[in-house]
Amino acid sequence: MNDLRFTQGVVDAGSAPAATIAEQLATMQAADAVELLNELEQNDTVGIIAEMPRDHAVLILDQPELHSAGAIIEALPDVIACELLDAMSADRVTDIFHELDAEARDRLFPGLGHETQQALAKLLRYPPHTAGSLMTTEFVSVPANWSVARTLQHIREVERSRETVYAIYVIDPENRSLLRAVALRRLIASEPEASIMTVGRDVAPVTVGPLTDQEDVARLFRKHDLLAVPVVNDGNQIIGIVTVDDVIDAMTQEMTEDTLKFGGMEALNKPYMQIGFLQMIRKRAGWLGVLFLSEMLTASAMQHFEGELEKAVVLTLFIPLIMSSGGNSGSQATSLLIRALALQELRLKDWWRVALRELPTGIVLGTFLGLIGVIRISTWQMLGLYDYGVHWHLVAATVGTALVGIVTFGSLAGSMLPFILQKIGFDPASASAPFVATLVDVTGLIIYFSIALMILSGTLL
Amino acid sequence: MNDLRFTQGVVDAGSAPAATIAEQLATMQAADAVELLNELEQNDTVGIIAEMPRDHAVLILDQPELHSAGAIIEALPDVIACELLDAMSADRVTDIFHELDAEARDRLFPGLGHETQQALAKLLRYPPHTAGSLMTTEFVSVPANWSVARTLQHIREVERSRETVYAIYVIDPENRSLLRAVALRRLIASEPEASIMTVGRDVAPVTVGPLTDQEDVARLFRKHDLLAVPVVNDGNQIIGIVTVDDVIDAMTQEMTEDTLKFGGMEALNKPYMQIGFLQMIRKRAGWLGVLFLSEMLTASAMQHFEGELEKAVVLTLFIPLIMSSGGNSGSQATSLLIRALALQELRLKDWWRVALRELPTGIVLGTFLGLIGVIRISTWQMLGLYDYGVHWHLVAATVGTALVGIVTFGSLAGSMLPFILQKIGFDPASASAPFVATLVDVTGLIIYFSIALMILSGTLL
Repeated sequence: MNDLRFTQGVVDAGSAPAATIAEQLATMQAADAVELLNELEQNDTVGIIAEMPRDHAVLILDQPELHSAGAIIEALPDVIACELLDAMSADRVTDIFHELDAEARDRLFPGLGHETQQALAKLLRYPPHTAGSLMTTEFVSVPANWSVARTLQHIREVERSRETVYAIYVIDPENRSLLRAVALRRLIASEPEASIMTVGRDVAPVTVGPLTDQEDVARLFRKHDLLAVPVVNDGNQIIGIVTVDDVIDAMTQEMTEDTLKFGGMEALNKPYMQIGFLQMIRKRAGWLGVLFLSEMLTASAMQHFEGELEKAVVLTLFIPLIMSSGGNSGSQATSLLIRALALQELRLKDWWRVALRELPTGIVLGTFLGLIGVIRISTWQMLGLYDYGVHWHLVAATVGTALVGIVTFGSLAGSMLPFILQKIGFDPASASAPFVATLVDVTGLIIYFSIALMILSGTLL
Repeated sequence: MNDLRFTQGVVDAGSAPAATIAEQLATMQAADAVELLNELEQNDTVGIIAEMPRDHAVLILDQPELHSAGAIIEALPDVIACELLDAMSADRVTDIFHELDAEARDRLFPGLGHETQQALAKLLRYPPHTAGSLMTTEFVSVPANWSVARTLQHIREVERSRETVYAIYVIDPENRSLLRAVALRRLIASEPEASIMTVGRDVAPVTVGPLTDQEDVARLFRKHDLLAVPVVNDGNQIIGIVTVDDVIDAMTQEMTEDTLKFGGMEALNKPYMQIGFLQMIRKRAGWLGVLFLSEMLTASAMQHFEGELEKAVVLTLFIPLIMSSGGNSGSQATSLLIRALALQELRLKDWWRVALRELPTGIVLGTFLGLIGVIRISTWQMLGLYDYGVHWHLVAATVGTALVGIVTFGSLAGSMLPFILQKIGFDPASASAPFVATLVDVTGLIIYFSIALMILSGTLL
């Protein structure tokens, strides 16, 4: 434990025994303790966790921010590991089991309590990014014929073993279907002898299915200001709940994935410095290669206009400027529409309304940039800074007109791409700025040279 | 109410009177009712809200998703408006007051209850994006000398008027400083006659200041799995709380802003279809113009290499391909680092570790693209698809080498930009893909022509 540096100065133990550190960590917020443990060698972390009182070790292991929790569990003596797993929240145990290899799973599973085994068997089934993969089976449900007092007494008894007790799910005693969600705050303010069915507003509870996408789950939390949402099966029986802390983690994960995708790369599943060099190359080379191959079409387009290029080299001067303007306006439009679709401000069927807005927007923005371009060429020419030739005003007209066309095309293409992706079943957020730029580059060149041919043929061309 | 279309089919009232609709809305989740009201003309919404039982109208107005809530409040009779505002949550009333003009504020303020007036005077002070602007003053705090039973009795009495009662803040009866945060779930499971100070773990509560940035607030919620966080002043006295629903709204807002900024435009404060045409132009033209002016440097760079361009037009064919590769690798690196800094996986001081990683990453990725480029040129030449001239192998070498240099530069520049922005006090998420591309374009051209001069001088140049 030579390299032990605790940044917050709470613990400062060059070679302190594990027990001492465990004691000091117990006085801190679990999340802060996790940050310190993450800086240690894994062996030391295992030693410290083994020394902790069990309930504090559970608090620590329950934090998704703890690095290599699977490896830590594996390194602990099996008896301790199973004891801790039994006491942890079921959704977290599931995450840890996902990290373990088959050998370790098979070794630990028989040592777990019956309830944990059952929860695991259920939760391991659901694919990532679904409500099922976020949910826990540790919720409070009571039959509809209970009273407020009986419900409260039940909550007091099970409180320790439930992820949340702030929402209580009332079920039909016959067919076990979900009737109502009652907030604990309304429960404690109600008459003890009243029926649980009289508490709160009589509205159908908000529910999700186990395969609901986590982005839709987050949308429901935002819309209804939920602390938890019940996950129900086809028979409207509650099979688990998703709590708000897991939704916040899922939102953060989605945000990272969407940003990386928009930047033009595959999402990572680990922090930047923890990704291996080769894995990082793989995650970036894929899209970079695809974009490069697509962008090769620009070389083909240029080859096609080779004759024009040789006659009027002056045209090449503005190629980067014109192409980037198309890419930039496309990137703006794509980012706008990605968010509008994610927030469901717009639906698929609204595509034409967007197109009708982006068309004039693109024309105005293109005219704006085109005017700057014309002014720039005229100024340079008249001040004698550069000589664009005797037909400089035609060159300026070509650049200006091309900018109108290309910015308009960029805005339209950039805004329609997210709709197209959604239409063919992809996440609109898969649209990336580099992809839009590539799309616009090839078309932009063709627009530029076509306009040049129209305006300059007979003079330069 | 001619254009009344309720998508969910719950209410289907071509010309139903406001009272009927109000009654039907009362049976729905408030958020669903808001969605339907948002589709109506504002006058109709005002009429329906005036017909509702007051407590249901409060539920509706408390939803931040309700469009033009300020205008609705203004259109209601003053007495009703004040009655509703008094019953709404203080943070929402503050948001609505931000929407009102000075005249309406001055008219309504005197009619409000004393408590609402005080809360408003306090909350209107804080700038947007801070904990103060998100917080509400409606929390539960009790002195440290109270028992569990007395605290529970107090909660039952005030429950209706508090935004959350799931966290109870225990304060020093002498100096009113915050001692502890107690979870309601632990409270109801504790012995009634025990002191409130014996409930839960004895750790210092997580707090924020009123000027803490909302992104930092969200980070604390994520880290500590909070449902609410107390906002304290310099004397550690609690002045309000931020609840998790407001944090989720703030996270969503930040995500939209960051996506738009990364796409190269100013953030919008309204949904896409609700932004006026001219406002939309303004939000996009600013950055587009700045990028265009910067990108003009590419024209200057090209003019500088005019002699080379005329001698070797073949070089121009690959300009778009090479420049876009630099921009794409830069965009990847920027998106990676924006997220790593936002999640605090990396700090400012880690910049050199990132640089030392991006350097070899860029070289490998550049070599990969360079090889594809060389293969492409050789294949076209050998298959007779295009004639790059007698020195085609030198042209291929130029393109390949330039790609290594430009992709490496793109990765380095793209990864350092977020650090530089953070260093000079900006949000790293202000780095945009178009900005990185522009940065890399200009340098990329210079790298390309410099390498061309080295490899081709004496032959083509």
